[in-house]
Amino acid sequence: MDEKRRVKITDTTMRDGHQSLLATRMRIEHMLPICEKIDQVGFHSLEVWGGATFDSCMRFLNEDPWERLRILRRHLKTPLQMLLRGQNVVGYKHYPDDVLTEFIKKTVYNGLDIFRIFDALNDVRNMQKAIEVVKQEGAHAQATVVYTISPVHNVEYYVKTAKTLEEMGADSICLKDMAGILAPQPAYEIIKEWKSVLKIPVQLHCHYTSGMAAMAYLRAIDAGVDVIDCAISTMALQTSQPAVETMVAALQGTPYDTGLDLKLLTEIAEHFKEVRKHYKEFDVASKSVDANVMIYQIPGGMMSNFISQLSQQNALHRLPEVLEELPRVRKEFGYPPLVTPSSQIVGTQAVLNVLMGRYKLATNEVKQYMRGFYGQPPAPVDEEVRRMIIGDEEPITCRPADLLEPGLPEARKEAAPYMQKEEDVISVALFPQVAPQFLKERLAKKLKVDLELAAQSSEFYPA
Amino acid sequence: MDEKRRVKITDTTMRDGHQSLLATRMRIEHMLPICEKIDQVGFHSLEVWGGATFDSCMRFLNEDPWERLRILRRHLKTPLQMLLRGQNVVGYKHYPDDVLTEFIKKTVYNGLDIFRIFDALNDVRNMQKAIEVVKQEGAHAQATVVYTISPVHNVEYYVKTAKTLEEMGADSICLKDMAGILAPQPAYEIIKEWKSVLKIPVQLHCHYTSGMAAMAYLRAIDAGVDVIDCAISTMALQTSQPAVETMVAALQGTPYDTGLDLKLLTEIAEHFKEVRKHYKEFDVASKSVDANVMIYQIPGGMMSNFISQLSQQNALHRLPEVLEELPRVRKEFGYPPLVTPSSQIVGTQAVLNVLMGRYKLATNEVKQYMRGFYGQPPAPVDEEVRRMIIGDEEPITCRPADLLEPGLPEARKEAAPYMQKEEDVISVALFPQVAPQFLKERLAKKLKVDLELAAQSSEFYPA
Ligand SMILES: [Co+2]
Ligand SMILES: [Co+2]
Repeated sequence: MDEKRRVKITDTTMRDGHQSLLATRMRIEHMLPICEKIDQVGFHSLEVWGGATFDSCMRFLNEDPWERLRILRRHLKTPLQMLLRGQNVVGYKHYPDDVLTEFIKKTVYNGLDIFRIFDALNDVRNMQKAIEVVKQEGAHAQATVVYTISPVHNVEYYVKTAKTLEEMGADSICLKDMAGILAPQPAYEIIKEWKSVLKIPVQLHCHYTSGMAAMAYLRAIDAGVDVIDCAISTMALQTSQPAVETMVAALQGTPYDTGLDLKLLTEIAEHFKEVRKHYKEFDVASKSVDANVMIYQIPGGMMSNFISQLSQQNALHRLPEVLEELPRVRKEFGYPPLVTPSSQIVGTQAVLNVLMGRYKLATNEVKQYMRGFYGQPPAPVDEEVRRMIIGDEEPITCRPADLLEPGLPEARKEAAPYMQKEEDVISVALFPQVAPQFLKERLAKKLKVDLELAAQSSEFYPA
Repeated sequence: MDEKRRVKITDTTMRDGHQSLLATRMRIEHMLPICEKIDQVGFHSLEVWGGATFDSCMRFLNEDPWERLRILRRHLKTPLQMLLRGQNVVGYKHYPDDVLTEFIKKTVYNGLDIFRIFDALNDVRNMQKAIEVVKQEGAHAQATVVYTISPVHNVEYYVKTAKTLEEMGADSICLKDMAGILAPQPAYEIIKEWKSVLKIPVQLHCHYTSGMAAMAYLRAIDAGVDVIDCAISTMALQTSQPAVETMVAALQGTPYDTGLDLKLLTEIAEHFKEVRKHYKEFDVASKSVDANVMIYQIPGGMMSNFISQLSQQNALHRLPEVLEELPRVRKEFGYPPLVTPSSQIVGTQAVLNVLMGRYKLATNEVKQYMRGFYGQPPAPVDEEVRRMIIGDEEPITCRPADLLEPGLPEARKEAAPYMQKEEDVISVALFPQVAPQFLKERLAKKLKVDLELAAQSSEFYPA
């Protein structure tokens, strides 16, 4: 701790905070009243969009995700940040480049500043197009390396991947620990190395699930990290991020002092404390830390998936076998990080292997994974296992999106009857099962209002 | 981090854990089934007795505290630890030396190993007798310095106080952060200095209230702390200690690796997860960290006391004035740490000063404080304020307990009708309002059993 160097904080309350704690259900009406205060804090940025919020807005909240972005932009001066799932955009599969490109253009147009771009396999090819377009549009491209634990995920791996992303043009780089398994020591080692070989700023994103996140931040700060991700205290901890207030207090009077005002933060915390009460039915995370995350190095959701899958087969007693099978499958699959969608792919295969015999059965997703359609895993897959799953089929070696037909023309046709703005086409291209229905209802509501207005007019001017 | 040096862990689940989270209500039946597993972990010690548990056993649980100790001792091989409030023993006022002495003798006799001894004002004279007797009895005397924040509580203060306690014969020393306000940087500075000037082992006890505790531990570990206090994950965080599992995972593979088994700890966590459900009515702590603790540097309970005291006077709107008055009162009182009973003494005076005018009214406790009957505060009290409270009365300068008459003779008379063992006399000496009733009911229950047995006998052998 030699020189005075403030640590900056990204507040995740309005994206990852409620995605982690409240099933992504927070509505914009619960954000707007507090925006003015949030703007006064001096956050480095506010993560308010992307991830699961886009889908959730249309699917559950009857809220236009594009409208949400515009409104937040009008209410906030602080840089706005989103989570972009690389070629998966804000969905769960690869989309063609025309959809990705148009999405980014419209997102920048609607006021977003910082794009955090990641790929579940850390396959840089799945982030390349996104980085390129974000930069073309004049926004900030933050490339991401997902943190996981495996024999191939050593410090050299993280340095090499980050270096490649920097060379691709990333404006900053983020280490993303979705499962909450990053211990303080590896946090220090990776960030220290990054700071010595990279020229771009470094950010750390941890989840609190195991209780280690604040300690990982502290060590990362020792190692020179520039920005850490936190949520306001009443939307922090559990499966969310460390609390802003805790990190602010912990760094006060040190060379890393954030300079943020605890009293102001408390007022914001009070707001979200009340807000959270509206979402009780979704607020089910455990009060205590999840030790399974540390023992099996798997995200919290995976264990509950195993339990539910096995229970359905009356085979809950085989859970220990599944937990032993999981690392084997993961090794044979080339050590993918356990995050959506790879966690589901690997997890379901581990269950099938235990119940049916090893690789007697494989889901369609597993076949696509082995065909290379998710991208390149961190290590080579086991070729024998690949043959058991897809036989003699030749896996692809190109970037998966290279094989996809443009998606906008079809979406434009589908959106046409309900379309009110260009962005609606992108919504349909991303969520063809959900968006048309949402747009249809939106239109119906608008027509109803128009009809009511017309009716009122007739009252005033009886025919 | 140069040499391999395991960090040791004291588990507080069965004392501070449930005292902090479940209003000290956990009954022994919820401890015994898991003792065997707890014994296998390899904890440095188990804090299972003392603090508020003694009182709570008799007052709420109809459980003999001495019986609890004996039973736990029979079920556990790991060293057992208790919290001893110095001359306050396990109560809330100063007791005469004969009561303290007999208490310690009987406690050692019943199997306790480590006495953590503290005084609310860090007045070493209030710990002296306890240290002396614990050592005479061949047990381990851990002296404690309470952590607080004030202009006089600098590193030099903590070093001087610890050094004095070591010279008094303490076998180890503990820094005790009851309010959860110890930030990582001061934790490092104090422990580092302690490790360089003290010969005895150093332990750190933090509460999680502000969310900083695990970070404080991490920095203390850097500084060479020997033992940290944790609770099992399902009884940790909130106002309790950091989770054992989190610290174990965070240190794995570092030179400080605890060597404890996460899977075994998970089994213990599962037990207490179920147990906790039995105490839902007492389990009211907030899920999120308490930022007020960091802003006002006061323990969590104080804020709620202010709110309740002011509400009763229809004066809740004057809370900001009280929060401004508090540091003034604290300064005039010689910067006492804010812990029972000084937190109540200072807090109530701050409320009175705002509502009635400065020092127009003072409680009896405040008068006794100014007369010196709680001991010597860390800094001199304001003499003008003292005069406003006790006029020309001369305060005492000796150790308060020097003025107390022996307490056992009277207690022995009181206990006589219900007494079943020597320890009952101590229970009565400590809690004359509570213990006799408890002993009476215990006797009645026993008589009822005897009568029932007698009745059964008559059935078998009809007269
Ligand atoms: Co996240
Ligand atoms: Co405590």
